[in-house]
Amino acid sequence: MNRIVFSIFLAAVFSVSAFADEGMWLYTAPPKQVLKEKFNFDVTDAWLEHLQKSSVRFNSGGSGSFVSPDGLVLSNHHVGADALHKFSDAEHNYLRDGFYARTRAEEKRCLDLELNVLYSIEDVTDRVNAAVKPDMTAETAFAARRAVMAEIEKESLDKTGLRSDVVTLYQGGQYHLYRFKKYTDVRLVFAPEQQAAFFGGDPDNFEYPRFDLDICIFRAYENDKPARVDHYLTWSPNGVADGELVFVSGHPGSTARQLTMTELQFLRDRQFPYALRRLYTLEVALLAYSNRTEENARRAKDLLFGVQNSRKARDGMFAALLDPQIMDAKLASERKLRDAVAKLPDAKDILSAWDTIDAAQKIVADNFLDSALLEGGHGFSSSFFDIARTILRAIEEKPKPNGERLREFRDSNLESLEFQLFSEEPLYDDFEQLKLSAGLTWLVSHKGLSDPLVQKVLAGKSPRDRAAELIAGTKLRDVALRKKLYAATPDEVKAANDPMIELARLIDADARAVRKILEAQGEIVDQAHAKITRARFAIEGPTAYPDATFTLRLAFGVVKGYQQDGQMIPFQTTMAGLYARAAEHNFQPPFNLPKTWIDRKDKLDLSTPFNFVSTADIIGGNSGSPVVNRAGEFVGIIFDGNIQSLVLDFAFTETQARAVSVNSQAILHALEKIYDAPDLAAELRGK
Amino acid sequence: MNRIVFSIFLAAVFSVSAFADEGMWLYTAPPKQVLKEKFNFDVTDAWLEHLQKSSVRFNSGGSGSFVSPDGLVLSNHHVGADALHKFSDAEHNYLRDGFYARTRAEEKRCLDLELNVLYSIEDVTDRVNAAVKPDMTAETAFAARRAVMAEIEKESLDKTGLRSDVVTLYQGGQYHLYRFKKYTDVRLVFAPEQQAAFFGGDPDNFEYPRFDLDICIFRAYENDKPARVDHYLTWSPNGVADGELVFVSGHPGSTARQLTMTELQFLRDRQFPYALRRLYTLEVALLAYSNRTEENARRAKDLLFGVQNSRKARDGMFAALLDPQIMDAKLASERKLRDAVAKLPDAKDILSAWDTIDAAQKIVADNFLDSALLEGGHGFSSSFFDIARTILRAIEEKPKPNGERLREFRDSNLESLEFQLFSEEPLYDDFEQLKLSAGLTWLVSHKGLSDPLVQKVLAGKSPRDRAAELIAGTKLRDVALRKKLYAATPDEVKAANDPMIELARLIDADARAVRKILEAQGEIVDQAHAKITRARFAIEGPTAYPDATFTLRLAFGVVKGYQQDGQMIPFQTTMAGLYARAAEHNFQPPFNLPKTWIDRKDKLDLSTPFNFVSTADIIGGNSGSPVVNRAGEFVGIIFDGNIQSLVLDFAFTETQARAVSVNSQAILHALEKIYDAPDLAAELRGK
Repeated sequence: MNRIVFSIFLAAVFSVSAFADEGMWLYTAPPKQVLKEKFNFDVTDAWLEHLQKSSVRFNSGGSGSFVSPDGLVLSNHHVGADALHKFSDAEHNYLRDGFYARTRAEEKRCLDLELNVLYSIEDVTDRVNAAVKPDMTAETAFAARRAVMAEIEKESLDKTGLRSDVVTLYQGGQYHLYRFKKYTDVRLVFAPEQQAAFFGGDPDNFEYPRFDLDICIFRAYENDKPARVDHYLTWSPNGVADGELVFVSGHPGSTARQLTMTELQFLRDRQFPYALRRLYTLEVALLAYSNRTEENARRAKDLLFGVQNSRKARDGMFAALLDPQIMDAKLASERKLRDAVAKLPDAKDILSAWDTIDAAQKIVADNFLDSALLEGGHGFSSSFFDIARTILRAIEEKPKPNGERLREFRDSNLESLEFQLFSEEPLYDDFEQLKLSAGLTWLVSHKGLSDPLVQKVLAGKSPRDRAAELIAGTKLRDVALRKKLYAATPDEVKAANDPMIELARLIDADARAVRKILEAQGEIVDQAHAKITRARFAIEGPTAYPDATFTLRLAFGVVKGYQQDGQMIPFQTTMAGLYARAAEHNFQPPFNLPKTWIDRKDKLDLSTPFNFVSTADIIGGNSGSPVVNRAGEFVGIIFDGNIQSLVLDFAFTETQARAVSVNSQAILHALEKIYDAPDLAAELRGK
Repeated sequence: MNRIVFSIFLAAVFSVSAFADEGMWLYTAPPKQVLKEKFNFDVTDAWLEHLQKSSVRFNSGGSGSFVSPDGLVLSNHHVGADALHKFSDAEHNYLRDGFYARTRAEEKRCLDLELNVLYSIEDVTDRVNAAVKPDMTAETAFAARRAVMAEIEKESLDKTGLRSDVVTLYQGGQYHLYRFKKYTDVRLVFAPEQQAAFFGGDPDNFEYPRFDLDICIFRAYENDKPARVDHYLTWSPNGVADGELVFVSGHPGSTARQLTMTELQFLRDRQFPYALRRLYTLEVALLAYSNRTEENARRAKDLLFGVQNSRKARDGMFAALLDPQIMDAKLASERKLRDAVAKLPDAKDILSAWDTIDAAQKIVADNFLDSALLEGGHGFSSSFFDIARTILRAIEEKPKPNGERLREFRDSNLESLEFQLFSEEPLYDDFEQLKLSAGLTWLVSHKGLSDPLVQKVLAGKSPRDRAAELIAGTKLRDVALRKKLYAATPDEVKAANDPMIELARLIDADARAVRKILEAQGEIVDQAHAKITRARFAIEGPTAYPDATFTLRLAFGVVKGYQQDGQMIPFQTTMAGLYARAAEHNFQPPFNLPKTWIDRKDKLDLSTPFNFVSTADIIGGNSGSPVVNRAGEFVGIIFDGNIQSLVLDFAFTETQARAVSVNSQAILHALEKIYDAPDLAAELRGK
């Protein structure tokens, strides 16, 4: 999912009308009134449940949906890319060349892909908050909250067998228990060539008009058989009409709309400049590596896409944060809320929440860099380091009572964690060395060579030499060894003397210490936000939606073009447009076409709708979300937002911001005419 | 000129033997003894004068040589790129497609290229130092030194009509007056396609073996006629032999071999991390812009090459600074010198020089960021800003006495300054806006949005909006207006109310203030280094060469391969190797071949030597330097250093570090067989 904004194009309108197509709504609190009043649409419980249980979360970071009773799951190519990349090798470049299993036997099992389907939601706010006493220190309060959340999750897992996560909403205003059905046997059915999925590459990313077949089709299995699912979306062969109401059901990753000005300023002044510097550094290193050989390019491709995508998104978001029009609007809205709060009976207590956040934010800022370098692992960027640290900490955490562990080691999460840790994903020494060398150089550049921890980490070597030595020395590429160490005693792990685990150990006290500080401040901030949220509900009524948290949400909007530079951009493109755009750029990369699309051009009905835009409120993480019509039928799949949508992280606007989707018609047409996949198309058609 | 180092490959040998091929020697103090003892070669004054006056400096940042009596000048394609870029447009992409003037009438005049030929050298150390009295403050001392230098230059210019520069050598240990004959009517004769000159692109940059025809041929004109020159290099059609002694005459830009540990630590801890961050940021922005359209790519190409080249070089140099092997050797050598100094009679005074430098370095570090952002212009990166500031300052500086002006406005430099300022180089609004927006964002990221100067600069707009407004508003694309304003009064310039000039005015007080601080500290550091240099000469004898300063130097070395990863890399490549390397990469960019080289492959003698390596001591700025044999004949042209040569910034080594050249034979063969340029080849052959 891909977002950027040139604030220069943005109209000043950021005060959202009561009838804007705004919102990433909880399934427990859908926007029934707006839908009724504006669109005369009644949201029924059955409609809602069907869409919820047809929606799929990709734990690798995206969304999708069931589209056949036999467990067919549709998502984006760029969501599936992680899986495609992991089972490719020097001889098979599935990410670049695509894949199609003509029989079920050919469907190819993904190495570590976990899908989640949301089955039930329970509000556990009172139970979570009851565990936290008013006189507790922040640290104790955090521990108490973590413990009760782990307890609730464990109880639920034991009772239902479902993956159970307590999720934090409204920045701590509410806590909900989400229960998911989990699929870990997921097989690849179809992927087009990356050049069909990502035609236009980085230059066209976050742009519109577009011409991308950004899809990837998997099948969920249970007990080695295709999963039979009760809820799946029926396919509309009719696509969308201009002005039509549509819904998006997916997992927006993260927004920052309810942050205070202080928190936004921290993002603007520290977090974004830091993150962008890191992305620029990584992008240049990955490009230089990729340009050396084709095999290098293949190894780096998935990470490079992620880095470039984040960079373009964050460039745009940073521009939004630097845009006085946007920040002034945020300031005005905060002032308005504070003025309203000032009239409430407990005004003084509520207003103090802003001061509390300001004070906490200072401590966060002071510890931000160490947190990123050590706990965030930016100083040690290698998959081997991540594996090493997970093993090191697992040994220490697992013997503790469930509620006292670092949160990722809670009982209810161990199965998912082990699924990732024991992945057979191929890791390449030269590529790991490149990343680790860049990480160590990053560490030195930020903490200075004379820092005692840096000195210990480098052990008298240059970053490059040290990275080479660590990668050559570690044995963690062996999954059997990972399993053995994960089950071993602390002494046995120490005796194994793996240099990467020993590196993780070297920095672990510091990493844990800074994490502890940030967790305590997080607790303080959550409590303060909870206060503000309660006040907001008291003033505006409990109709607001929470900021995105990679949990299932419902958005709505209309299919609609927009004005840009005095021109009307139509709501949809056609397949003819793909060929025209390629010709405009002389078919040069990244505007070249795959051979299949060149050879079979005359088999296509070029007037077939390809991509379309709508006003639905989406953000990164929504990639792969189904777009459905009033009847709940699948009409398209979200794969991008336009450049003007990048501001959506901070505030909603529908003047120009648009979600970009692949039309359901284009998918069938391409499967039938380009990819010789009539059986697959028939399964989607429900035939 | 292109340098990088993987310190991992470096042997520990950094103590240079008395007979190493080390040194970027002054023409006034050539290494006669070493050449005699090691190679039995006598450096005669005539030999030296001929090579000196055949050598050409490109003021755009490179080296070259006269290669015919009719003013033919040979340099690298990547040195000529600046000129090629400036007279290209959307219809003519000379940088990419190459150029050949089949008649003199077709030779194409460069827009703002100035060539300098060194005619005489005079030691003016005593006169410069006499102007500085012991009791002066640093600021006064700097002003006095600047004044006497401007006075010497003006006197020399008036007397001889030659461009006259007082150059600082040995970090302030000596001052020499260099007089240059200047050519400003320089015309392009021949350039190959960039893909022939820079085959292998960024991946092969700073690598060896190589297969590049990195040449560009100009002709100097005087009075609208080809310049008749007395000194030019005769062409050797025989190239080089393994083990042969060769000489390099050129303009190494800058080295840091004589810096103290404190100064090196500043480079390591502050300067390099900052510069690399900036290069990464620029590279990503330029790539994103270039990928959008072919015309964008053309507009950005020259700058993008420069940025990628610097990035690869600095990545390697930074790795060297982070390599304990290298830094420990530097520390040991400083300790050795200090121990020797301690035995001198005035030891205490000399040793205090190191403390003086340490103290000054602290102040430099404190002011480094403001200096880069404001005086260095990193916060305002647009050619329009540079033009605006030059005009603004010219108006203020020109009325002052010669010796009191900012150094670039001294009388003897005005002609060269005006030549650049009034260049008809085409400037593109979208490209300037991209750079300026990146600059303003860089400024905000480093000084923070709440900084009062930043607030004034942005004038209530986002960086993007402000950049757009400034570029749209400035009238400085009109060269006639530049001339008018340059000759105007301060009030007239104010009345013109050009937004870019007003922006320059807005920050000028702060920019000048930080420059003044750094100039004063520079004076202090120069005086301290002068002390250390005198001590070094007292201890080692006056045989050392000074650090590189983009002044003419003589280097020597032998043609010689090297060991890498257990393999012997031969001293030269052949044309057959070019085709083999392209085939290895399936002829995919940047390993694709120009059409000429594909079509005419069978006309070539594929055994023709193409590129070769030697141990000569070179660095960035040496690009285009002629390589000559004992007879003073042209045998090749420097165009790169290998990856192991990047450490040469800080210390010499000949274990693996090599200079990379194009063989003289390859140039003739390509002109005759690929480019149908027998007349040009004949002129080079002296026929």
